[in-house]
Amino acid sequence: MSKFLQHRPFCLASSSPRRQMLLKKYGLKFVCHSPKIDETPLKNEAAKSFVKRMSREKANAVQSAFPELPHDVIILAGDTIVFFDDNILGKPENAEHAYSMLEQLSGQTHQVFSGYSILNKDSAEDITAVICTEVRFQELSDEMLEWYVNSGEAFGKAGAYSIQGLGSILVESISGSYNNVVGFPIERIIPHLIENSWVSFAEQEKMEVSA
Amino acid sequence: MSKFLQHRPFCLASSSPRRQMLLKKYGLKFVCHSPKIDETPLKNEAAKSFVKRMSREKANAVQSAFPELPHDVIILAGDTIVFFDDNILGKPENAEHAYSMLEQLSGQTHQVFSGYSILNKDSAEDITAVICTEVRFQELSDEMLEWYVNSGEAFGKAGAYSIQGLGSILVESISGSYNNVVGFPIERIIPHLIENSWVSFAEQEKMEVSA
Repeated sequence: MSKFLQHRPFCLASSSPRRQMLLKKYGLKFVCHSPKIDETPLKNEAAKSFVKRMSREKANAVQSAFPELPHDVIILAGDTIVFFDDNILGKPENAEHAYSMLEQLSGQTHQVFSGYSILNKDSAEDITAVICTEVRFQELSDEMLEWYVNSGEAFGKAGAYSIQGLGSILVESISGSYNNVVGFPIERIIPHLIENSWVSFAEQEKMEVSA
Repeated sequence: MSKFLQHRPFCLASSSPRRQMLLKKYGLKFVCHSPKIDETPLKNEAAKSFVKRMSREKANAVQSAFPELPHDVIILAGDTIVFFDDNILGKPENAEHAYSMLEQLSGQTHQVFSGYSILNKDSAEDITAVICTEVRFQELSDEMLEWYVNSGEAFGKAGAYSIQGLGSILVESISGSYNNVVGFPIERIIPHLIENSWVSFAEQEKMEVSA
């Protein structure tokens, strides 16, 4: 009842467990292919342009590297970066790096940019967009920072935290899309899939709603 | 490693599975007592005052109704309301009610107020506070509203939606604490517990962080 009917095969061009989880929550089935692309920003490339380009390149890379994908496949890609003080914060290399990233973000507001692409192999109805969420961190004590880094959750995450995990208590407030910070803005992706009739609402008994 | 050490027994004055989940995520152990209190707003009572009073009354009710609670117990209580267009939206009574609440919220911004209380049975270090998060809904089609109400998730939720469930795609953006909308602002509650030494960081190997 609560899931969607799916009329096209999907491919997620990402190995992010958070993005997979967001799609699975709505009952969408998909294969995953994690594309290898050069993730170095161009000289003077703005954060927003970079994340948009990354997302589009991931989608394109999957399209060309996996010719065995069905001709009617819809490719979904996403890329997320944390941006603070004119710097892109990637994934921490080690505990010390994670600690220093989180120390930088403590008590401050940073931006999370997610680019997402929806490619339709057969047609020109492609979309690539980027949205931004502002995230304000609490003032974090040394003990809190150590506790969090030692939890191991910081690793593999842009900006060294996971907003939906234990890292939830590092955050004071956000402004914008929450799902965007988790992985990608699923609340924008699903309506787009519905508009194009790639997914639809399951047949359901009509509710008794009187006028 | 990632959990906290707990030095006092806790009692959650709420039967909300979301509040239980927020505490369990951090490894906190607690008993639950769901207090019976009159949840009718006073005449001309502001939303903020109402939710603060409810949270405090729930905590007090548990304290007096359960004398068998250990003398050093910490009582946590919370109350959440959805406020829109000068009205408090409670839990929907049926599908029609849920549909009309969500239709009202569609494309609009509403406020979610959570009151929370932390009572220390033995001392005067009590806290009762309220915080507000603004939530903006997407423009929702009739099909989307029907789909959501038919999922059954709307029932038992103030404002007829669950931001962390399927209802996640109803929301365009938020401004403020996300956890507040889920159940209560755990990011404020845990630091308060730490400050009072009711929980502490687990002993852990010191990270190698060079100066």
